[in-house]
Amino acid sequence: MGKPSITSRSVQRADGTTRDDELAVEEPLEIRLLGETLGVTLRTPGEDEALAVGFLHGEGLITGIADLGTVVHCGKTTDEAYGNLVEVTPAPGAHVVLKRVDRTRRLTVTTSACGLCGRVTIDDLVAMAGPVPHGPVLDRALLAGAPERLREVQARFHRTGAVHGALLLSATGAMLASGEDVGRHNAVDKAVGRWLLSGSTEAPALLVVSGRAGFDVVQKAAMARVRVVVSVSAATSLAVDTAERVGLTLVGFCRDGAFSVYSHPERVGP
Amino acid sequence: MGKPSITSRSVQRADGTTRDDELAVEEPLEIRLLGETLGVTLRTPGEDEALAVGFLHGEGLITGIADLGTVVHCGKTTDEAYGNLVEVTPAPGAHVVLKRVDRTRRLTVTTSACGLCGRVTIDDLVAMAGPVPHGPVLDRALLAGAPERLREVQARFHRTGAVHGALLLSATGAMLASGEDVGRHNAVDKAVGRWLLSGSTEAPALLVVSGRAGFDVVQKAAMARVRVVVSVSAATSLAVDTAERVGLTLVGFCRDGAFSVYSHPERVGP
Repeated sequence: MGKPSITSRSVQRADGTTRDDELAVEEPLEIRLLGETLGVTLRTPGEDEALAVGFLHGEGLITGIADLGTVVHCGKTTDEAYGNLVEVTPAPGAHVVLKRVDRTRRLTVTTSACGLCGRVTIDDLVAMAGPVPHGPVLDRALLAGAPERLREVQARFHRTGAVHGALLLSATGAMLASGEDVGRHNAVDKAVGRWLLSGSTEAPALLVVSGRAGFDVVQKAAMARVRVVVSVSAATSLAVDTAERVGLTLVGFCRDGAFSVYSHPERVGP
Repeated sequence: MGKPSITSRSVQRADGTTRDDELAVEEPLEIRLLGETLGVTLRTPGEDEALAVGFLHGEGLITGIADLGTVVHCGKTTDEAYGNLVEVTPAPGAHVVLKRVDRTRRLTVTTSACGLCGRVTIDDLVAMAGPVPHGPVLDRALLAGAPERLREVQARFHRTGAVHGALLLSATGAMLASGEDVGRHNAVDKAVGRWLLSGSTEAPALLVVSGRAGFDVVQKAAMARVRVVVSVSAATSLAVDTAERVGLTLVGFCRDGAFSVYSHPERVGP
């Protein structure tokens, strides 16, 4: 039994009437590796271990579940003061380079006199993730239908309107894992973490996200060896340039059967 | 002349045709105070000084422009490798407590054995921001019309579909400042920073945001002494509980003349 992910509050409507509405819960989660705090993220409780594992994977701190020793949640309780910490200990012999990580960019990165730039940010990721393998060519109908598949796993969004969703599909469209969270990046971390923790040997070919495709989403996808990212919303310049460099197909504005392919269209079938 | 905030990339549509589409630029910006890196955020270039000033204000590192000495941008250039750093030096005699800040939560916060919790997060903010003053009672039509006012300043959103907007209004509905950015929090920081840098003596009564109202938005609003936050989208539990505690009126799902008041409805007039 963990913390609830949805709660209820009294709401006054524009017409003056009052009723109870369902809200997404937002609470801080601290992620520790080897006893060191890596970061604190405001997340929707639920799948906290998956969130921590997905986060570590996206940052290149672990390369798979073989690197994981223990993933300990500090208490499956509804007490408000507990249940907001996940401690990860690497497997014996696993090589983990501890570094401070934050949700925006790594603060320990050596910055030039004039700050970071997009080129350096992309170079960092390519050095860490390496190029995404070629193929497969995906059925156009699978891409166009991705938002509908995503909606099927957005139970919390349908109740609260406040959480983002992320979904991992195989090349044939089999559902591998999903995540929901108030944070776009957390939803992706949860999906990747659940896929890793499931021990699935089937590789995720598609990542479908409800929010905009920014650099962070492409980074997490590249680290998970995902080939195609599909967003129902827009993509940013850095996401497109990163996807182009790392070999990933980035699809945006996927709605009502239409979509825009921003990079590597060779994976989009006839 | 600064970096562009919008760029163009070739896009392949679902029907196989190719065209150029406009995209929001996303680039890292490093914010330094007294030579120390406070954080790096992925932002849309433009109003970088305002972003830095609004960020420092939201974190309680400055209390107004009187605390500001110099705000130096490292180069108004279109060269990709420059223009991603803002250095802030406090005014002589200004008391600035330097601490490491990140976009999610302050990493230097003393954490309990079991991590942070929402209660502690709210207590921190109340200690820093203090209660929001009472009043004013706002015209219901001003609230209902807030999204339309916001759309008027979302020029980049209309072109790219990828950026969030934030707008500060006075109690009588006068526009004080606005911001647009790929990051929800950055849009708010830009609006607050522009209002501070304008030297306006008119206090912002409303903050209108295009995205969800999470804890971060309420925090920034409380630090700017904003009385009412209006979101066209949903609010999270922590945002509602924080607004309730700090004395702020939180309005969500403001669309098509309807809205939901989550806290302190006494400011919503007849």
